[in-house]
Amino acid sequence: MYLEYYAGIDVGGTNLKFGVFSGEGNLIEKWSVPTDFGNGGKNMWQQIHREIARHLSVKALKGIGIGIPGPVLENGYVEVCVNLNLRNFNPVTILRTYFSDAGDIKIAAANDANVAALGEQWKGSGQGYRSIGMVTLGTGVGGAVIIDGKLRYGANGLAGEIGHIRLNPEETELCTCGGRGCVDQIASATGIVRYAEKKLKDNNGNSILRTKGCLTAKTVIDAAKQGDRIAEDIVRYCMKYLAKALAAVVYVADPEAFIIGGGVSEAGDYLIKILQEQFEPYITLSGNRPPILKASLGNLAGIYGAARLVLN
Amino acid sequence: MYLEYYAGIDVGGTNLKFGVFSGEGNLIEKWSVPTDFGNGGKNMWQQIHREIARHLSVKALKGIGIGIPGPVLENGYVEVCVNLNLRNFNPVTILRTYFSDAGDIKIAAANDANVAALGEQWKGSGQGYRSIGMVTLGTGVGGAVIIDGKLRYGANGLAGEIGHIRLNPEETELCTCGGRGCVDQIASATGIVRYAEKKLKDNNGNSILRTKGCLTAKTVIDAAKQGDRIAEDIVRYCMKYLAKALAAVVYVADPEAFIIGGGVSEAGDYLIKILQEQFEPYITLSGNRPPILKASLGNLAGIYGAARLVLN
Repeated sequence: MYLEYYAGIDVGGTNLKFGVFSGEGNLIEKWSVPTDFGNGGKNMWQQIHREIARHLSVKALKGIGIGIPGPVLENGYVEVCVNLNLRNFNPVTILRTYFSDAGDIKIAAANDANVAALGEQWKGSGQGYRSIGMVTLGTGVGGAVIIDGKLRYGANGLAGEIGHIRLNPEETELCTCGGRGCVDQIASATGIVRYAEKKLKDNNGNSILRTKGCLTAKTVIDAAKQGDRIAEDIVRYCMKYLAKALAAVVYVADPEAFIIGGGVSEAGDYLIKILQEQFEPYITLSGNRPPILKASLGNLAGIYGAARLVLN
Repeated sequence: MYLEYYAGIDVGGTNLKFGVFSGEGNLIEKWSVPTDFGNGGKNMWQQIHREIARHLSVKALKGIGIGIPGPVLENGYVEVCVNLNLRNFNPVTILRTYFSDAGDIKIAAANDANVAALGEQWKGSGQGYRSIGMVTLGTGVGGAVIIDGKLRYGANGLAGEIGHIRLNPEETELCTCGGRGCVDQIASATGIVRYAEKKLKDNNGNSILRTKGCLTAKTVIDAAKQGDRIAEDIVRYCMKYLAKALAAVVYVADPEAFIIGGGVSEAGDYLIKILQEQFEPYITLSGNRPPILKASLGNLAGIYGAARLVLN
């Protein structure tokens, strides 16, 4: 029997993460390299081929799955990817050209939060659930929906873009998407810091946060965990908007469970508990509420899920 | 060849609507009777059997589909149906008992807005679309999502309950669902009238509406169509919330098209145009926007869709 391998690639604004999996779905090797943005994207595709070829015989490769930080259609087409500064491209057809030496292999692409959701469903907190709402709390708020066992892309690649539900009519600044009042602007790491700075300015109560030089979402959440009242209010306020967004997801797709991933979710049970408390009262049409679970694969979810796109 | 028939039943708070369909999906006969609520629901089930038996030989029946005004699980279970004042029942198992004389037939149930969506996809405005967001604007705001060709029920029967997305943080009154700030409270016929009454009280500008004895959603929309400024503001305000809800549906399920049905949608192109204008700016992550279409089956959508549950 010949050995068969599958590659999962997670394209990020900073790093390219790679995972090589066996046909049985075991992670054999993983590594990452800084993303090379040069030459209008060409360097990155060359880099991907070079990195994989450096770790295994391309002839043994049976499939490549890739996660892209932006909306992706089911056929792979990407209209715009702000983080990579690329427009109108299809990673599936591009990779097929770069990997012509690999023969007729499976290639598939999806949004980065979508692959994280697939990864968590396959090997993480989502095991056993057929329908999942995933939220990644990082620099922005990403999201994904898996409904009845299948990752949903949507007609224009927007399914699961939970971060851009508009819930804050009082917002005065623009979101990176060009909209205003998105959940992304308040529940992301950036949003938490921005709201914290505003709250500290509008208020002259005592807070450990005033002694910190440069605020991060982690400093704010850590202060809240230690009982700092202003920090607690900030976390509760930001999570209220995420809770409203989760309720909107229930009233559209009604998943069996939510999974919260991304850097901010490292705050763990404390954050999940606040989110759960704020979420529950919004669900009034049923006595049942989906559990809100912390993601368990950390930043490996992307390579697992990307591989899962081509590995059943 | 024996003739085979399928029944589609649309259970409403006022009437039971019936349709008998051929195996080819043609509507052969339709009628309606006032719903008999007596005897803890028993009268209604008897009524359904009696009405169908009055129109055809139950032996020729191959399937019964039923639409229920409340959340329904995929197996038919209904936790609570406020309009019928019934709890914890399963129309599928109940109908199986009442139609034991029909032999082993297909029986299925779904929410009333869900069956309307199926009906519109099968024989109405939704033909040719595999993914649809449906909204019914009546006494309340109902909704449904069909994703990748399949009606989605959700884990707790809440998929597509678009009317209960919370979008108005300034709302002071409770929604029928027990929540506060639901789209239902502002974009339903009831919501439009309520907001119009408030707006006329808070404002002393001229308006034809002041000459009307009893306001209805139709009076308000008709006045807006005739250029009454206050009425225009009211319709625009109420539709803004529905537009926000549709944008939330895009950022969760991203359907190919929206279909607007229910009594209020009879206002036609005028209302659809206002909704479309308000909706478009909310979609920022893609240049494409799903069309918003008026439902075309009117109040027959329910019997068509109910039959479609059991007729492929």
